[in-house]
Amino acid sequence: MSYKIITISRQFGSGGRTIGKEVAEKLGVPCYDQELIAMMADESGFSEEQVKELDEKEVRKKLITTRAERALNSSYMQSALWIAQEKVIQELAEKGPCVIVGRCADRILKDREDTLRVFIHADQDKRAERIVEVYGERDEAPLHRVREKDKLRENYYERYTRDQWGDARNFHIALDSGELGIEFCVELLEKLYKAE
Amino acid sequence: MSYKIITISRQFGSGGRTIGKEVAEKLGVPCYDQELIAMMADESGFSEEQVKELDEKEVRKKLITTRAERALNSSYMQSALWIAQEKVIQELAEKGPCVIVGRCADRILKDREDTLRVFIHADQDKRAERIVEVYGERDEAPLHRVREKDKLRENYYERYTRDQWGDARNFHIALDSGELGIEFCVELLEKLYKAE
Repeated sequence: MSYKIITISRQFGSGGRTIGKEVAEKLGVPCYDQELIAMMADESGFSEEQVKELDEKEVRKKLITTRAERALNSSYMQSALWIAQEKVIQELAEKGPCVIVGRCADRILKDREDTLRVFIHADQDKRAERIVEVYGERDEAPLHRVREKDKLRENYYERYTRDQWGDARNFHIALDSGELGIEFCVELLEKLYKAE
Repeated sequence: MSYKIITISRQFGSGGRTIGKEVAEKLGVPCYDQELIAMMADESGFSEEQVKELDEKEVRKKLITTRAERALNSSYMQSALWIAQEKVIQELAEKGPCVIVGRCADRILKDREDTLRVFIHADQDKRAERIVEVYGERDEAPLHRVREKDKLRENYYERYTRDQWGDARNFHIALDSGELGIEFCVELLEKLYKAE
């Protein structure tokens, strides 16, 4: 074990992003999360707003549209964006040590031996509590919001990777942050990264 | 986090049993693995041989028989054995601190807050190597044997728990022992168990 990159896949509200940022800080390496949107926009030629829209809305549409409508939606723009995403993530990995949160980076970098693949999850109730506490999300029932985001992320992951979202076998380590605590997760990943 | 029991679910050849035994030794608590067969026999009234046969063969049959044959097989004996298994595992958990390997103990004890639920896995090639090295299994192609056992375990788990085998969200921690090493997994679980 000797890692250069950590990818963090995470359930909404599990604290995966916080864990990524804190681990990166402790290791003195950059953490890429929201920054990836701008990079993908740059790479693909879409605006940041378009990237965000395509990202969520197209996957959301998948849930409600007919097969014919899906076929129309799923063509050029999405493929272009996915290709841009792969390129951005592969280039970041080449550039130097870093932490990458989300965006199927675990699958995009799955053949790199220098990459520690992490999954962070927690039970629905704890995540619902957390999104209210940390993000101040109050516009809709938090448990409903958690379930909706879970579904969106699952669809997105499975659509692009053709793999099962949340399968432990796709990760070197999977942690229940609600049970183990965010601090424990951060320390453990720091230790793993530094281990020879 | 404060645990009394550790359940270890594991892929065949991943070293999950070794990890369970070593953690139990370090913690000075019993580890139940093969011993469960005798206890289940005792509880159910079947012989140990019958338990072993029912265990594997019935699940194996599921792969090859018709629906009508399955219906005939799946009745009394299997249900009786599953009930005995639940009872044995619940009683062990009541009795005192321990490590329990396999037998869907994670699902049987899922409502106990004093139980740390662990999944151990590794990639197929590493597991195939390990079964030759450690168990000396040479009677058939090791990779074929690994795949067959994976299928059996998956069927068994999903049949009785109605849950997805290997889903990270069912465990507090899931570890790739081929990547992280058995020693690292043992130390980590010991630390987690002892943490307040």
